[in-house]
Amino acid sequence: MKIILASASPRRKELLGQIGLETEIVPSKVEEQVTTDIPEDVVVELSRQKAEDVAAGIQENDILVIGADTVVSASGKILGKPGSVEEAAEMIRRLAGKTHQVYTGVTLICRDQQGREKTVSFSEKTDVSVYPMSEKEIMDYAACGEPMDKAGAYGIQGKFAAYIQGIQGDYSNVVGLPVGRLYQEIKKIREARYD
Amino acid sequence: MKIILASASPRRKELLGQIGLETEIVPSKVEEQVTTDIPEDVVVELSRQKAEDVAAGIQENDILVIGADTVVSASGKILGKPGSVEEAAEMIRRLAGKTHQVYTGVTLICRDQQGREKTVSFSEKTDVSVYPMSEKEIMDYAACGEPMDKAGAYGIQGKFAAYIQGIQGDYSNVVGLPVGRLYQEIKKIREARYD
Repeated sequence: MKIILASASPRRKELLGQIGLETEIVPSKVEEQVTTDIPEDVVVELSRQKAEDVAAGIQENDILVIGADTVVSASGKILGKPGSVEEAAEMIRRLAGKTHQVYTGVTLICRDQQGREKTVSFSEKTDVSVYPMSEKEIMDYAACGEPMDKAGAYGIQGKFAAYIQGIQGDYSNVVGLPVGRLYQEIKKIREARYD
Repeated sequence: MKIILASASPRRKELLGQIGLETEIVPSKVEEQVTTDIPEDVVVELSRQKAEDVAAGIQENDILVIGADTVVSASGKILGKPGSVEEAAEMIRRLAGKTHQVYTGVTLICRDQQGREKTVSFSEKTDVSVYPMSEKEIMDYAACGEPMDKAGAYGIQGKFAAYIQGIQGDYSNVVGLPVGRLYQEIKKIREARYD
């Protein structure tokens, strides 16, 4: 079964490689549409749109398409990717000294050898607690280049680890893909196929 | 200030590099002696012995020596590094489907430009929950090579991520060094030096 990642994120591909899953990247070009502002629903909707878009463009059978979307939620506000250093600093300021939530939504579309499709979606939440930061630390981090392509303006797998007090949940979920839960779900799908 | 890591672990050097701290490795050759079987005390004792041994061998001033030791504790039993694939399988079997604790002890010896020394020790705990695993998964993982140089016979930063349900605490602590707490403690030491 060929595994296709409907996301251009090199971090997601790396996480899948870590648990031994080789994937091909086919980024989705879908116009993202959101009908809710509840973080766990937003990420599931977006992951589904990406996975469906990519699956529709592939003619082959015996494939598994993985769509994923990650958002950071701080005091009820969803933080996307920052557009500027100033915006990054503003986001980091919201996170410093507090606990926020990271949600990743995942949709798996499995198409078997006969072309029959099965779709599974789920979302995973991780709480992340950040140490208090000085204004200099916030500005230095915002300007270090790491925040620009990341939801919530930080990379837990980068320099921002210095400011992480602890998490509750799956670490890889914060990086962008909950590989533990994902592995369990893929196992279930594979077992079901051979029943 | 030159930072010296009293541990040959490439993972610890990498974690320090992640938060921007360049370190020189000087592994300790001390005969490890433990006077307790309480995990959080064991790791502090061992980290202190390593840091003191290495600091004693260095003549220079203006240095920071970091000693660290990590153990895995499952239902009150301390798990070290496995000696064989069978021992690795036995350890993994103890962890599967349950929550265990990872403790890292850290000792910082800071010697200032005048040769005055200050020592700080602490330990950090992270709870790690592992999904249930089949006997085949346990045997395959035990034999995959990853477990052999790791306390508790697993690497959370490797293939074992597939079996991690979640953690509570600092992720880097499970890898071998609590970089968040460490950064905060180094900051305190540096500020105190320039008071």
